[in-house]
Amino acid sequence: MKKGIFITFEGPDGSGKTTVSKGVYDKLIANGIDAIYTREPGGIEIAEKIRDIILDPKHTTMDAKTEALLYAASRRQHLVEKVKPALEQGKVVICDRFVDSSLAYQGCGRHLGIDEIWSINNFAIEGFMPVKTIYLDLSAEDGLKRIENREFKDRLDQETIQFHHDVQEGYKQIVERFKERMLIVDASKDVETVVDTAYNRVLEIIHDQG
Amino acid sequence: MKKGIFITFEGPDGSGKTTVSKGVYDKLIANGIDAIYTREPGGIEIAEKIRDIILDPKHTTMDAKTEALLYAASRRQHLVEKVKPALEQGKVVICDRFVDSSLAYQGCGRHLGIDEIWSINNFAIEGFMPVKTIYLDLSAEDGLKRIENREFKDRLDQETIQFHHDVQEGYKQIVERFKERMLIVDASKDVETVVDTAYNRVLEIIHDQG
Repeated sequence: MKKGIFITFEGPDGSGKTTVSKGVYDKLIANGIDAIYTREPGGIEIAEKIRDIILDPKHTTMDAKTEALLYAASRRQHLVEKVKPALEQGKVVICDRFVDSSLAYQGCGRHLGIDEIWSINNFAIEGFMPVKTIYLDLSAEDGLKRIENREFKDRLDQETIQFHHDVQEGYKQIVERFKERMLIVDASKDVETVVDTAYNRVLEIIHDQG
Repeated sequence: MKKGIFITFEGPDGSGKTTVSKGVYDKLIANGIDAIYTREPGGIEIAEKIRDIILDPKHTTMDAKTEALLYAASRRQHLVEKVKPALEQGKVVICDRFVDSSLAYQGCGRHLGIDEIWSINNFAIEGFMPVKTIYLDLSAEDGLKRIENREFKDRLDQETIQFHHDVQEGYKQIVERFKERMLIVDASKDVETVVDTAYNRVLEIIHDQG
Protein backbone atom coordinates (compact mmCIF):
# COMPACT_ATOMS: atom_id res chain seq x y z
CA MET A 1 0.00 0.00 0.00
CA LYS A 2 1.24 3.46 -0.97
CA LYS A 3 2.02 5.62 2.03
CA GLY A 4 1.54 9.36 2.21
CA ILE A 5 4.17 12.00 2.92
CA PHE A 6 3.74 14.53 5.71
CA ILE A 7 5.52 17.87 5.16
CA THR A 8 5.09 20.97 7.34
CA PHE A 9 5.86 24.65 6.74
CA GLU A 10 7.17 26.80 9.56
CA GLY A 11 8.55 30.30 10.04
CA PRO A 12 7.95 33.50 12.03
CA ASP A 13 4.92 35.73 11.46
CA GLY A 14 5.03 37.46 8.13
CA SER A 15 7.42 34.92 6.61
CA GLY A 16 4.75 34.04 4.08
CA LYS A 17 4.02 30.49 5.24
CA THR A 18 0.43 30.47 4.03
CA THR A 19 1.14 32.03 0.63
CA VAL A 20 4.16 29.82 0.03
CA SER A 21 2.67 26.55 1.25
CA LYS A 22 -0.49 27.13 -0.81
CA GLY A 23 1.68 28.03 -3.82
CA VAL A 24 3.61 24.78 -3.40
CA TYR A 25 0.36 22.83 -3.09
CA ASP A 26 -1.00 24.41 -6.32
CA LYS A 27 2.14 23.38 -8.18
CA LEU A 28 1.91 19.82 -6.85
CA ILE A 29 -1.70 19.53 -8.05
CA ALA A 30 -0.82 21.13 -11.42
CA ASN A 31 1.85 18.46 -11.81
CA GLY A 32 -0.54 15.61 -11.07
CA ILE A 33 0.68 14.86 -7.54
CA ASP A 34 -2.06 13.72 -5.15
CA ALA A 35 -1.75 16.28 -2.35
CA ILE A 36 -3.80 18.22 0.19
CA TYR A 37 -3.11 21.60 1.76
CA THR A 38 -4.13 22.01 5.37
CA ARG A 39 -3.49 24.06 8.48
CA GLU A 40 -4.77 23.70 11.99
CA PRO A 41 -7.72 23.72 12.61
CA GLY A 42 -8.29 22.65 9.01
CA GLY A 43 -12.06 22.78 8.83
CA ILE A 44 -12.42 20.17 11.60
CA GLU A 45 -15.37 21.46 13.61
CA ILE A 46 -13.98 20.67 17.07
CA ALA A 47 -10.59 22.13 16.20
CA GLU A 48 -12.20 25.24 14.65
CA LYS A 49 -14.08 25.91 17.88
CA ILE A 50 -10.89 25.51 19.92
CA ARG A 51 -9.08 27.90 17.58
CA ASP A 52 -11.87 30.48 17.98
CA ILE A 53 -11.29 30.47 21.75
CA ILE A 54 -7.53 30.88 21.30
CA LEU A 55 -7.67 33.78 18.87
CA ASP A 56 -10.63 35.78 20.23
CA PRO A 57 -9.17 39.24 20.99
CA LYS A 58 -11.64 39.54 23.93
CA HIS A 59 -9.84 36.75 25.81
CA THR A 60 -7.27 39.01 27.42
CA THR A 61 -7.12 36.93 30.62
CA MET A 62 -6.02 33.76 28.83
CA ASP A 63 -3.16 32.14 30.68
CA ALA A 64 -0.15 31.03 28.59
CA LYS A 65 -0.52 27.41 29.71
CA THR A 66 -4.22 27.38 28.85
CA GLU A 67 -3.25 28.61 25.40
CA ALA A 68 -0.59 25.91 25.04
CA LEU A 69 -3.03 23.15 26.04
CA LEU A 70 -5.66 24.46 23.63
CA TYR A 71 -3.19 24.43 20.74
CA ALA A 72 -2.23 20.85 21.61
CA ALA A 73 -5.93 19.86 21.74
CA SER A 74 -6.67 21.47 18.38
CA ARG A 75 -3.58 19.80 16.88
CA ARG A 76 -4.62 16.40 18.15
CA GLN A 77 -8.08 16.60 16.62
CA HIS A 78 -6.80 17.92 13.28
CA LEU A 79 -4.14 15.19 13.14
CA VAL A 80 -6.60 12.39 13.88
CA GLU A 81 -9.47 13.62 11.74
CA LYS A 82 -7.65 15.07 8.75
CA VAL A 83 -3.89 14.49 8.45
CA LYS A 84 -3.71 10.78 9.23
CA PRO A 85 -6.67 9.78 7.02
CA ALA A 86 -5.09 11.68 4.08
CA LEU A 87 -1.73 9.98 4.66
CA GLU A 88 -3.43 6.61 4.80
CA GLN A 89 -4.83 7.38 1.36
CA GLY A 90 -1.26 7.90 0.12
CA LYS A 91 -1.50 11.68 -0.24
CA VAL A 92 1.23 14.28 0.17
CA VAL A 93 0.05 16.42 3.10
CA ILE A 94 1.27 20.02 3.05
CA CYS A 95 0.59 21.41 6.53
CA ASP A 96 0.95 25.10 7.35
CA ARG A 97 2.38 25.04 10.93
CA PHE A 98 2.58 22.09 13.33
CA VAL A 99 4.36 21.28 16.61
CA ASP A 100 7.36 23.56 15.92
CA SER A 101 5.01 26.56 16.05
CA SER A 102 4.01 25.70 19.60
CA LEU A 103 7.64 25.18 20.58
CA ALA A 104 8.46 28.65 19.21
CA TYR A 105 5.35 30.59 20.30
CA GLN A 106 4.46 29.01 23.62
CA GLY A 107 7.85 27.53 24.47
CA CYS A 108 9.88 30.66 23.68
CA GLY A 109 7.46 33.55 22.99
CA ARG A 110 5.57 32.79 26.22
CA HIS A 111 8.70 31.47 27.98
CA LEU A 112 7.09 28.15 28.98
CA GLY A 113 10.15 26.22 27.80
CA ILE A 114 10.66 24.09 24.70
CA ASP A 115 10.85 20.81 26.66
CA GLU A 116 7.60 21.39 28.55
CA ILE A 117 5.75 22.31 25.36
CA TRP A 118 7.26 19.34 23.57
CA SER A 119 5.98 17.08 26.34
CA ILE A 120 2.30 18.10 26.14
CA ASN A 121 2.45 18.12 22.35
CA ASN A 122 3.93 14.68 22.28
CA PHE A 123 0.96 13.50 24.34
CA ALA A 124 -1.15 14.88 21.45
CA ILE A 125 0.85 13.56 18.49
CA GLU A 126 2.43 10.39 19.96
CA GLY A 127 5.71 10.93 18.14
CA PHE A 128 3.95 11.41 14.82
CA MET A 129 6.20 14.03 13.19
CA PRO A 130 6.55 15.30 9.61
CA VAL A 131 9.21 13.62 7.52
CA LYS A 132 10.55 17.10 6.65
CA THR A 133 9.80 20.72 7.53
CA ILE A 134 10.30 23.66 5.17
CA TYR A 135 11.51 26.54 7.34
CA LEU A 136 10.90 30.00 5.86
CA ASP A 137 13.73 32.06 7.20
CA LEU A 138 13.11 35.79 7.75
CA SER A 139 14.27 38.31 10.35
CA ALA A 140 11.68 39.29 12.99
CA GLU A 141 11.91 42.92 11.80
CA ASP A 142 11.02 42.03 8.22
CA GLY A 143 8.22 39.75 9.43
CA LEU A 144 6.76 42.47 11.65
CA LYS A 145 6.78 45.00 8.80
CA ARG A 146 4.62 42.59 6.84
CA ILE A 147 2.22 41.96 9.77
CA GLU A 148 1.72 45.69 10.33
CA ASN A 149 0.01 45.93 6.98
CA ARG A 150 -2.63 43.35 7.92
CA GLU A 151 -6.14 44.75 8.25
CA PHE A 152 -7.49 42.35 10.91
CA LYS A 153 -5.09 41.58 13.72
CA ASP A 154 -5.94 38.57 15.91
CA ARG A 155 -4.89 38.15 19.54
CA LEU A 156 -1.41 36.91 18.56
CA ASP A 157 -0.79 39.54 15.87
CA GLN A 158 -1.39 42.15 18.59
CA GLU A 159 1.49 40.88 20.72
CA THR A 160 4.51 43.05 21.45
CA ILE A 161 7.63 43.28 19.32
CA GLN A 162 9.50 41.56 22.18
CA PHE A 163 7.17 38.55 21.88
CA HIS A 164 7.84 38.23 18.16
CA HIS A 165 11.59 38.56 18.75
CA ASP A 166 11.43 35.75 21.33
CA VAL A 167 9.50 33.60 18.86
CA GLN A 168 12.19 34.26 16.26
CA GLU A 169 14.92 33.28 18.73
CA GLY A 170 12.89 30.17 19.54
CA TYR A 171 12.74 29.17 15.90
CA LYS A 172 16.54 29.48 15.68
CA GLN A 173 16.93 26.99 18.54
CA ILE A 174 14.34 24.65 17.05
CA VAL A 175 15.95 24.71 13.59
CA GLU A 176 19.28 23.85 15.22
CA ARG A 177 17.78 21.13 17.41
CA PHE A 178 15.91 19.38 14.61
CA LYS A 179 18.35 20.15 11.81
CA GLU A 180 17.98 16.70 10.23
CA ARG A 181 14.32 17.45 9.60
CA MET A 182 14.62 21.13 8.63
CA LEU A 183 15.03 22.47 5.09
CA ILE A 184 15.78 26.18 5.25
CA VAL A 185 14.44 28.47 2.53
CA ASP A 186 15.32 32.18 2.36
CA ALA A 187 11.95 33.95 2.70
CA SER A 188 13.28 37.46 2.05
CA LYS A 189 13.20 36.90 -1.74
CA ASP A 190 10.17 37.67 -3.92
CA VAL A 191 7.27 35.28 -3.46
CA GLU A 192 7.68 33.45 -6.79
CA THR A 193 11.30 32.64 -6.04
CA VAL A 194 10.40 31.41 -2.54
CA VAL A 195 7.56 29.23 -3.87
CA ASP A 196 9.82 27.78 -6.59
CA THR A 197 12.61 27.01 -4.13
CA ALA A 198 10.21 25.43 -1.62
CA TYR A 199 8.49 23.45 -4.39
CA ASN A 200 11.80 22.00 -5.54
CA ARG A 201 12.62 21.01 -1.97
CA VAL A 202 9.26 19.26 -1.70
CA LEU A 203 9.87 17.38 -4.97
CA GLU A 204 13.21 16.18 -3.57
CA ILE A 205 11.46 14.94 -0.41
CA ILE A 206 8.86 13.07 -2.47
CA HIS A 207 11.62 11.59 -4.61
CA ASP A 208 13.63 10.49 -1.55
CA GLN A 209 10.55 8.88 0.04
CA GLY A 210 9.32 7.23 -3.17
CA MET B 1 -1.38 36.82 56.06
CA LYS B 2 -4.18 34.27 56.40
CA LYS B 3 -3.97 31.55 53.82
CA GLY B 4 -6.92 29.79 52.21
CA ILE B 5 -7.72 26.09 52.25
CA PHE B 6 -8.30 24.19 49.05
CA ILE B 7 -10.63 21.15 49.37
CA THR B 8 -11.98 19.10 46.47
CA PHE B 9 -14.92 16.69 46.18
CA GLU B 10 -14.63 13.60 44.00
CA GLY B 11 -16.63 10.47 43.24
CA PRO B 12 -18.24 8.57 40.37
CA ASP B 13 -21.25 9.88 38.46
CA GLY B 14 -24.38 9.93 40.55
CA SER B 15 -22.47 9.91 43.85
CA GLY B 16 -23.99 13.28 44.66
CA LYS B 17 -20.85 15.41 44.48
CA THR B 18 -22.64 18.59 43.47
CA THR B 19 -25.48 18.26 46.01
CA VAL B 20 -23.12 17.32 48.83
CA SER B 21 -20.40 19.87 48.11
CA LYS B 22 -22.99 22.65 47.82
CA GLY B 23 -24.62 21.42 51.04
CA VAL B 24 -21.26 21.56 52.81
CA TYR B 25 -20.63 25.04 51.42
CA ASP B 26 -24.03 26.25 52.68
CA LYS B 27 -23.23 24.98 56.17
CA LEU B 28 -19.82 26.67 56.12
CA ILE B 29 -21.41 30.00 55.21
CA ALA B 30 -24.21 29.52 57.80
CA ASN B 31 -21.47 29.03 60.39
CA GLY B 32 -19.63 32.19 59.40
CA ILE B 33 -16.74 30.57 57.59
CA ASP B 34 -15.44 32.54 54.61
CA ALA B 35 -15.81 30.04 51.79
CA ILE B 36 -16.59 29.77 48.09
CA TYR B 37 -18.16 26.90 46.17
CA THR B 38 -16.83 26.33 42.66
CA ARG B 39 -16.54 23.70 39.96
CA GLU B 40 -14.77 23.82 36.63
CA PRO B 41 -15.42 25.89 34.53
CA GLY B 42 -16.72 28.05 37.37
CA GLY B 43 -18.12 30.97 35.43
CA ILE B 44 -14.72 31.78 33.92
CA GLU B 45 -15.59 32.75 30.35
CA ILE B 46 -12.65 31.01 28.66
CA ALA B 47 -13.15 27.85 30.72
CA GLU B 48 -16.93 27.91 30.05
CA LYS B 49 -16.31 27.97 26.32
CA ILE B 50 -13.88 25.06 26.58
CA ARG B 51 -16.41 23.11 28.62
CA ASP B 52 -19.10 23.74 25.97
CA ILE B 53 -16.86 22.09 23.37
CA ILE B 54 -16.20 19.09 25.62
CA LEU B 55 -19.83 18.40 26.52
CA ASP B 56 -21.59 19.17 23.22
CA PRO B 57 -23.41 15.90 22.32
CA LYS B 58 -22.84 16.72 18.62
CA HIS B 59 -19.08 16.25 19.00
CA THR B 60 -19.13 12.50 18.39
CA THR B 61 -15.73 12.53 16.65
CA MET B 62 -13.89 13.95 19.65
CA ASP B 63 -10.69 12.03 20.28
CA ALA B 64 -9.98 10.98 23.87
CA LYS B 65 -6.69 12.87 23.95
CA THR B 66 -8.34 16.04 22.64
CA GLU B 67 -10.84 15.72 25.47
CA ALA B 68 -8.07 15.22 28.04
CA LEU B 69 -6.18 18.30 26.81
CA LEU B 70 -9.37 20.40 26.87
CA TYR B 71 -10.09 19.41 30.46
CA ALA B 72 -6.54 20.34 31.43
CA ALA B 73 -6.90 23.71 29.64
CA SER B 74 -10.20 24.48 31.36
CA ARG B 75 -8.73 23.43 34.71
CA ARG B 76 -5.74 25.71 34.25
CA GLN B 77 -7.84 28.79 33.51
CA HIS B 78 -10.25 28.12 36.38
CA LEU B 79 -7.34 27.60 38.77
CA VAL B 80 -5.56 30.80 37.76
CA GLU B 81 -8.62 33.04 37.49
CA LYS B 82 -10.77 31.77 40.34
CA VAL B 83 -9.27 29.25 42.79
CA LYS B 84 -5.90 30.90 43.44
CA PRO B 85 -7.29 34.43 43.89
CA ALA B 86 -9.84 33.11 46.44
CA LEU B 87 -7.12 31.24 48.34
CA GLU B 88 -4.99 34.36 48.37
CA GLN B 89 -7.90 36.12 50.06
CA GLY B 90 -7.83 33.44 52.78
CA LYS B 91 -11.03 31.69 51.75
CA VAL B 92 -11.94 28.02 52.07
CA VAL B 93 -12.38 26.84 48.47
CA ILE B 94 -14.81 23.93 48.03
CA CYS B 95 -14.21 22.62 44.51
CA ASP B 96 -16.52 20.06 42.89
CA ARG B 97 -14.06 17.84 40.90
CA PHE B 98 -10.41 18.54 40.07
CA VAL B 99 -7.44 16.57 38.74
CA ASP B 100 -8.62 13.22 40.18
CA SER B 101 -11.64 13.35 37.86
CA SER B 102 -9.36 13.48 34.82
CA LEU B 103 -7.25 10.63 36.18
CA ALA B 104 -10.42 8.52 36.59
CA TYR B 105 -12.35 9.55 33.45
CA GLN B 106 -9.61 10.07 30.88
CA GLY B 107 -6.90 7.96 32.51
CA CYS B 108 -9.11 4.93 33.23
CA GLY B 109 -12.51 5.47 31.55
CA ARG B 110 -10.77 6.30 28.25
CA HIS B 111 -7.77 4.05 28.98
CA LEU B 112 -5.19 6.79 28.39
CA GLY B 113 -3.34 5.84 31.57
CA ILE B 114 -3.18 7.59 34.94
CA ASP B 115 0.47 8.61 34.55
CA GLU B 116 -0.01 10.21 31.14
CA ILE B 117 -3.05 12.15 32.34
CA TRP B 118 -1.22 13.18 35.48
CA SER B 119 1.62 14.51 33.36
CA ILE B 120 -0.48 16.89 31.21
CA ASN B 121 -2.50 17.96 34.24
CA ASN B 122 0.61 18.70 36.19
CA PHE B 123 1.67 21.01 33.35
CA ALA B 124 -1.64 22.81 34.03
CA ILE B 125 -1.57 22.93 37.83
CA GLU B 126 2.20 22.94 38.54
CA GLY B 127 1.84 20.67 41.55
CA PHE B 128 -0.89 22.82 43.05
CA MET B 129 -3.07 20.17 44.70
CA PRO B 130 -5.89 20.34 47.28
CA VAL B 131 -4.86 19.84 50.88
CA LYS B 132 -7.58 17.18 51.18
CA THR B 133 -10.16 15.52 48.95
CA ILE B 134 -13.55 14.27 50.12
CA TYR B 135 -14.22 11.06 48.18
CA LEU B 136 -17.90 10.13 47.89
CA ASP B 137 -17.87 6.38 47.73
CA LEU B 138 -20.66 4.66 45.78
CA SER B 139 -20.83 1.57 43.57
CA ALA B 140 -20.98 2.19 39.81
CA GLU B 141 -24.36 0.43 39.69
CA ASP B 142 -25.92 2.71 42.28
CA GLY B 143 -24.41 5.76 40.56
CA LEU B 144 -25.77 4.71 37.18
CA LYS B 145 -29.27 4.23 38.58
CA ARG B 146 -29.19 7.84 39.74
CA ILE B 147 -27.89 9.11 36.35
CA GLU B 148 -30.64 7.29 34.45
CA ASN B 149 -33.20 9.53 36.07
CA ARG B 150 -31.54 12.70 34.74
CA GLU B 151 -33.58 14.53 32.15
CA PHE B 152 -30.74 16.06 30.10
CA LYS B 153 -27.82 13.74 29.44
CA ASP B 154 -24.58 15.36 28.22
CA ARG B 155 -21.94 13.61 26.09
CA LEU B 156 -20.39 11.92 29.11
CA ASP B 157 -23.69 10.85 30.71
CA GLN B 158 -24.42 9.02 27.45
CA GLU B 159 -21.32 6.81 27.75
CA THR B 160 -21.64 3.04 28.11
CA ILE B 161 -21.96 1.18 31.40
CA GLN B 162 -18.49 -0.25 30.73
CA PHE B 163 -17.07 3.29 30.66
CA HIS B 164 -18.63 4.12 34.03
CA HIS B 165 -17.33 0.84 35.48
CA ASP B 166 -13.82 1.68 34.29
CA VAL B 167 -14.12 5.14 35.85
CA GLN B 168 -15.15 3.52 39.13
CA GLU B 169 -12.17 1.14 38.97
CA GLY B 170 -10.00 4.15 38.24
CA TYR B 171 -11.23 5.98 41.32
CA LYS B 172 -10.35 2.92 43.43
CA GLN B 173 -6.76 3.07 42.20
CA ILE B 174 -6.59 6.83 42.73
CA VAL B 175 -7.98 6.63 46.28
CA GLU B 176 -5.34 4.01 47.05
CA ARG B 177 -2.53 5.97 45.41
CA PHE B 178 -3.32 9.25 47.14
CA LYS B 179 -4.64 7.84 50.41
CA GLU B 180 -2.92 10.50 52.52
CA ARG B 181 -5.03 13.13 50.79
CA MET B 182 -8.32 11.20 50.56
CA LEU B 183 -11.14 11.27 53.10
CA ILE B 184 -13.69 8.61 52.21
CA VAL B 185 -17.37 9.28 52.87
CA ASP B 186 -20.07 6.63 52.30
CA ALA B 187 -22.35 8.17 49.66
CA SER B 188 -24.99 5.43 49.76
CA LYS B 189 -26.63 6.99 52.83
CA ASP B 190 -29.37 9.60 52.67
CA VAL B 191 -28.23 13.01 51.48
CA GLU B 192 -28.49 14.75 54.88
CA THR B 193 -26.28 12.14 56.52
CA VAL B 194 -23.73 12.41 53.69
CA VAL B 195 -23.68 16.22 53.89
CA ASP B 196 -23.28 16.12 57.69
CA THR B 197 -20.46 13.59 57.52
CA ALA B 198 -18.66 15.51 54.78
CA TYR B 199 -19.17 18.81 56.63
CA ASN B 200 -17.60 17.39 59.79
CA ARG B 201 -14.64 16.17 57.78
CA VAL B 202 -14.22 19.65 56.29
CA LEU B 203 -14.34 21.23 59.76
CA GLU B 204 -11.56 18.86 60.85
CA ILE B 205 -9.46 19.89 57.85
CA ILE B 206 -9.97 23.57 58.65
CA HIS B 207 -9.07 22.92 62.26
CA ASP B 208 -5.92 20.98 61.31
CA GLN B 209 -4.80 23.74 58.91
CA GLY B 210 -5.63 26.61 61.23
